Amino acid sequence: MNNIFSYFIPKDRKFFPLFEKASANLIDMANQLEGLVNSPEALREPYYKSIENLEHKGDEITHQIYLELSKTFITPFDREDIHALASALDDIADYIHGSANRMLLYNVTEMTEPIKKLADLVKQGCVDVEKAVKELKNLKNIRVITDSCVRINSIENQADYVFDKAVGDLFDYEDDAKTIIKYKEVLSALETATDMCEDVANVLESILVKNA
Amino acid sequence: MNNIFSYFIPKDRKFFPLFEKASANLIDMANQLEGLVNSPEALREPYYKSIENLEHKGDEITHQIYLELSKTFITPFDREDIHALASALDDIADYIHGSANRMLLYNVTEMTEPIKKLADLVKQGCVDVEKAVKELKNLKNIRVITDSCVRINSIENQADYVFDKAVGDLFDYEDDAKTIIKYKEVLSALETATDMCEDVANVLESILVKNA
Amino acid sequence: MNNIFSYFIPKDRKFFPLFEKASANLIDMANQLEGLVNSPEALREPYYKSIENLEHKGDEITHQIYLELSKTFITPFDREDIHALASALDDIADYIHGSANRMLLYNVTEMTEPIKKLADLVKQGCVDVEKAVKELKNLKNIRVITDSCVRINSIENQADYVFDKAVGDLFDYEDDAKTIIKYKEVLSALETATDMCEDVANVLESILVKNA
Repeated sequence: MNNIFSYFIPKDRKFFPLFEKASANLIDMANQLEGLVNSPEALREPYYKSIENLEHKGDEITHQIYLELSKTFITPFDREDIHALASALDDIADYIHGSANRMLLYNVTEMTEPIKKLADLVKQGCVDVEKAVKELKNLKNIRVITDSCVRINSIENQADYVFDKAVGDLFDYEDDAKTIIKYKEVLSALETATDMCEDVANVLESILVKNA
Repeated sequence: MNNIFSYFIPKDRKFFPLFEKASANLIDMANQLEGLVNSPEALREPYYKSIENLEHKGDEITHQIYLELSKTFITPFDREDIHALASALDDIADYIHGSANRMLLYNVTEMTEPIKKLADLVKQGCVDVEKAVKELKNLKNIRVITDSCVRINSIENQADYVFDKAVGDLFDYEDDAKTIIKYKEVLSALETATDMCEDVANVLESILVKNA
Repeated sequence: MNNIFSYFIPKDRKFFPLFEKASANLIDMANQLEGLVNSPEALREPYYKSIENLEHKGDEITHQIYLELSKTFITPFDREDIHALASALDDIADYIHGSANRMLLYNVTEMTEPIKKLADLVKQGCVDVEKAVKELKNLKNIRVITDSCVRINSIENQADYVFDKAVGDLFDYEDDAKTIIKYKEVLSALETATDMCEDVANVLESILVKNA
């Protein structure tokens, strides 16, 4: 079954720790995002700052993975999949950062229920991303990974629904078009962060599928 | 030429029937979408409901393909391509459903000409997707697949044009910003459904290219 | 190191010239785009026309690459990567064309600073895409490619920032929601063109990673 893995993985000391670092960083970002959307305006600045910093930290981890890849001959799974996974994890970070950034730049002062709900779904997505990534290194428990992928897909579906409903409500209850656009953009960035979690799930499933 | 295929394909009784099921389901969805945008408001509810149901049916087919993949050792073509194709077909379903959903949630009562035109292009795209997918199982007639891919690309181009023109017209003839945003979002979801058909075409071309 | 390449590449007379043609065409498009956004309204028509024509030229090059792929047995690198690279280059052309098209269809008469800045970033991205693509054929200097990829990523980050800042400013200083939407759509198409440059960088990195 997973013979390739059982052979190579015990030797890999490079990629798995970096992937775990990247996904742990996503958890930190998602927690900061949650803090941000649940804090009164006056207390939000530190959250914006740490999300910014964590995004840079994520960039460095991604860069380190690419660097290792260029120096390492034998990799625990296909080189292009390592690249794809690193890049998909980085995309989640980008959209969490992008969501926070839009809140700041567009002066979104009122954190509405759908914003909070989507931030929570982003966090749930990151939790499952981390769970699945952690399991990659031994693959003894493929089920843990596939279960996380299924949950991530369901989280993304829920996010879609929250987004569509929230925008529908904006049309129904908000008269100022400018406000509608602002909130739609923020909600859309949050929803896209869950899409990016789904992309990670797709890469993970594809890795499993190749090596099963 | 297609030696790998001629060898393995006659034995495959799993994936091709499921892919055909998935693309037949897309035809059903596209027909319901067409019915929806060409019906007076009072008669639209059943269309919304069947699109919803068909989307669930599509999800189940996708899930079945993934399940087969996890249980099957020898596949008719690369495992990751089976995964990519299943996921791309599912994306079309998601955007057809998403388009209908926005019409409903945003109270889009007037089905304008560009909406009807885009729904028609989505349907044309699905027809070619089905045609191409059907041909995958024997690959005796690669030309049928490449011709469908070319047509899908042209359909996507047309959809781009219809979308851009329609939005330009909204700016010219519609004064209410809220209405502009609503219609733009619905048109955009429809246009993205044709992008997803193009993604399927890309996966199909990539499969041909690998196995030619 | 790059043994596969040093073996096959000297023989390839088909794909590399076509990839160079495609990226040279992107430089032409980016130059026309720059001319467009820096010209007074009365002088813009020829730019729109040449961008349209160059986009068709790009389509033909892409088509030629696909055709070669279907006829060629031994390719300088993985068939699916040739397909992915051709398709990613084509996407850049599509978004440059799409940006210009929106300016035209939405009657965007005033070319604002962020529009000019983004057009400049698109051009910078295309310059690095061309530089990297040129180097593919011998791969003696992998560093040139990776450096370009790093720069393209940084360009895309800058474009993100310009876009977010510009939209924030629209909310602050523009009262007409219609104008906000129009400019947001044009800026977004330009920003997406830099995303597409990043996709090319991803494909290139993935090719290097596989063959290093």
